[in-house]
Amino acid sequence: MSEVYAVRRQLLRDRCAAVGSAAALVSRPANVRYLAGGAPPGAVLLLGPGGDVLLAPRDPSGDPADGRTDEHLRLSLLPGPDGDPVVAAADLAASSGAESLAVEEHHLTVSRHRAMSSVAPGLGLADLGATVEQLRVVKDEEEIACLRIAAEITDQALGELLESILVGRTERHLALELERRLVDHGADGPAFATSVATGPNSGQGRHRPSDRRVEEGDFLSVCLGANYRGYRCEIGRTFVIGTTPADWQIDLYDLVFAAQRAGREALVPGAAYRDVDRAARYLLDSAGHGGGLAPWTGHGVGLEIDEDPQLAPAAMGKLDACVPVTVEPGVHLPGRGGVRIDDTLVVRPEADGGPELLTITTKELLAL
Amino acid sequence: MSEVYAVRRQLLRDRCAAVGSAAALVSRPANVRYLAGGAPPGAVLLLGPGGDVLLAPRDPSGDPADGRTDEHLRLSLLPGPDGDPVVAAADLAASSGAESLAVEEHHLTVSRHRAMSSVAPGLGLADLGATVEQLRVVKDEEEIACLRIAAEITDQALGELLESILVGRTERHLALELERRLVDHGADGPAFATSVATGPNSGQGRHRPSDRRVEEGDFLSVCLGANYRGYRCEIGRTFVIGTTPADWQIDLYDLVFAAQRAGREALVPGAAYRDVDRAARYLLDSAGHGGGLAPWTGHGVGLEIDEDPQLAPAAMGKLDACVPVTVEPGVHLPGRGGVRIDDTLVVRPEADGGPELLTITTKELLAL
Repeated sequence: MSEVYAVRRQLLRDRCAAVGSAAALVSRPANVRYLAGGAPPGAVLLLGPGGDVLLAPRDPSGDPADGRTDEHLRLSLLPGPDGDPVVAAADLAASSGAESLAVEEHHLTVSRHRAMSSVAPGLGLADLGATVEQLRVVKDEEEIACLRIAAEITDQALGELLESILVGRTERHLALELERRLVDHGADGPAFATSVATGPNSGQGRHRPSDRRVEEGDFLSVCLGANYRGYRCEIGRTFVIGTTPADWQIDLYDLVFAAQRAGREALVPGAAYRDVDRAARYLLDSAGHGGGLAPWTGHGVGLEIDEDPQLAPAAMGKLDACVPVTVEPGVHLPGRGGVRIDDTLVVRPEADGGPELLTITTKELLAL
Repeated sequence: MSEVYAVRRQLLRDRCAAVGSAAALVSRPANVRYLAGGAPPGAVLLLGPGGDVLLAPRDPSGDPADGRTDEHLRLSLLPGPDGDPVVAAADLAASSGAESLAVEEHHLTVSRHRAMSSVAPGLGLADLGATVEQLRVVKDEEEIACLRIAAEITDQALGELLESILVGRTERHLALELERRLVDHGADGPAFATSVATGPNSGQGRHRPSDRRVEEGDFLSVCLGANYRGYRCEIGRTFVIGTTPADWQIDLYDLVFAAQRAGREALVPGAAYRDVDRAARYLLDSAGHGGGLAPWTGHGVGLEIDEDPQLAPAAMGKLDACVPVTVEPGVHLPGRGGVRIDDTLVVRPEADGGPELLTITTKELLAL
C-alpha cells in the first residue's frame, strides 16, 4: 500500500536531481498528502540527504494524523504549534549536509522563506515550482477509484434531493441538505462549498447560496461534490421548477447541453487543453453568449477541487489518459438566470471506450 | 456607515508614515475586509499616493462583492481571474509615484512577491508586518454587536440540539445538525468546523467528528460558533449522556469548570495575557493534568476565529478593554474522554461590570 508513496517520492527526487537540487521541501498540503499518504495538519515533507522526514507541529487536540501516513516515512513532531516546520526542515537539511533546498515558492510566504534563510544561512533556497502539481495530473487507478466513489456519493445525494419538495425552500437550506446527504452516503465532507442558485441566480458557477426561496417557474442550478479519502469530484445540474418550462428555458438548456456534450466528446488523449475549451465554448460563442462566459470551461480534479490542467483559451498542454477533468460550460442571463451543466470525467483512449463519465445523474431537463 | 472604514484606513496610513512608507498593500482577506467593509474574493487593498483602491480579479460567477464594500473606495476590476491583483497593485503604486510599498510578508507567497518586484523593479518592497492585525485587536461597539448576535445564534443552535434525542446519533450528524441550526437562526455560516466529540474523544478541542455514535454514560463535548457578518464567536460545552454521571466525570467537570471560571475572572483591562492563561491553567496543573494541556487556554476572536491575542504561557502583552477573547481550558484523559468548557467574552472595566459574557448557555453539568 505505502509503496505507492515511496515511488512518488522517488520520482520527485529524480526530478530534483535533474535540475541539480539534492533536497526538496514540500509544504503545500495537497502535495504533502500526495507524497506521504496523509499527514498531520501543518506538516511539511523534507526529502533530504538524511532520508524522507515529515515534520509537524505537535497537535494540541491529539489527532495523530489526517489520513494514513506512509509507514515508511519518519514523522518528526516538533515541540509546539508555534515551531514552524519549514524552519525546522531548513535546519535539518543544512545539518544533514544539503547545500541547496528546493522549496515551493508559490506556497511559502515571504516571512517563512526569510526565517528559513535566517536559521540556515549557508543553505541555498531554490524554487521547486509546480513539480509536485505536475506529478499529480495523471492519476493511478487507485486514485480514480476514489474519485469514482466520490462521484457515486454525489449522484446519490443529488438524486435524493430531487425527490423532495423544493418550492419554498431557500438556497441556503438546500445547500446544507445536500452537504448532509453527502456525509450520510459516506463522504468525508463536501469537496467544496455547495452552490444552489435559483431564479435569477441560476447558471452562475460559484453562486453563494442566499435566502432566496425556490419559486414556480425558476431555473434551479446546483453544483456539489463529495470528498472521499481526500479526492474531490464535482457535478452541476440545472432543473426547472413546475410543470412546463418556458420556451426560452428549453432553448437555453438545449444550447448549453449541446455545448457541454461537445466538450465531453473532445476529451481524448492528446487533445490540446485549448481545443477542449474551444469545443465547449464554440456553440455558446456562436449564439452570442461569448461575453459573459467564465474564462475556463473545465479543470482537473483530484486532491484539490481545482487543479491542473485548466481548460481555457490560453492554456498550454495536451490531455493524457487517466486525467480526470470537469466539463462545465454555463450561460447566465443577468436578471433572468441561466443554465450550467457540469460533469467529472476521466480521459481514456478510444480503445477503452473513450472518456469515462463519473457523474451519471441524468442531463435531461427535468421539471421538478 | 462607511466612515468607519475610512477612519481605519487613515490609522493604517499614519502607522505606515511613521515607519517611512507612503504606500501599503493589504492582501490578507480578513485585513482587507476590516479596511474595506467587504470585498470580492481575492481582492487586495492599495493605500497609495493615488488614493485608496481595491483591486480584484473579475469574478466569473458574477458575484459583485462579498459584503458591503465601503462606497468611498474605488474598486478596480482586473480583466480576468489570472491577473494577480498584487502585481497590478505594484504596477499602479509605482506608476502613481510611490518609491516604496509595505506588503504583508506573512501572507504573500515568495512567487507573488517576486512577480511584484519584477513588474515594478524600482519599487522598494518593505514589510507591513502585523500592523493591520494589531489594529483589529480592540473592537468597536459595532463589531462587538455583531459578535453578540453571533453568540446569540450559537446559543440558540446549541439549545435546540440539547432538546433532541442524542443517543445513537453519530458525531458527524450532530455536527451537521448544529451547522444547519446556526444557518436557520441567521448565521452566514459556521465560524469554523463544528466539533462534536463523544466518549473517549470528548474533551479534545478540535476533534474532527467521526462516525462514533453517542452512547449512554458518554461525555459529549461540542464546540461551535456562528459567523455573523464576518464576525465569529465560539462556545464549547461538555455534557453527560444518561441519568447519573460517574464520580470521575463529576470530579473532572468540577475541576475544569473551576479552571475556566478562574480564567474568566482574570479578564480585566491591563491583565497580562500570560497571567490570564496561568489563572486558567493553574488548577489543572495542580491536579496533575499539566502535561496534556493545549499550549494556550484562549485567543482573540473577530473577523477570524483565531486572532490576536493568544492567551498562552509565553505570550507578551496586556489585555485592553473591548477585546473579545475565548477562555477554553480542557482536559482529555486518553482512552476515557474529558471535559472542555469554552466561552467568548469581551474584556470590560470593573466599573462597567467586568467581562461581558457573550455565550450564555449554562455551564452546569447537564445529564441529557
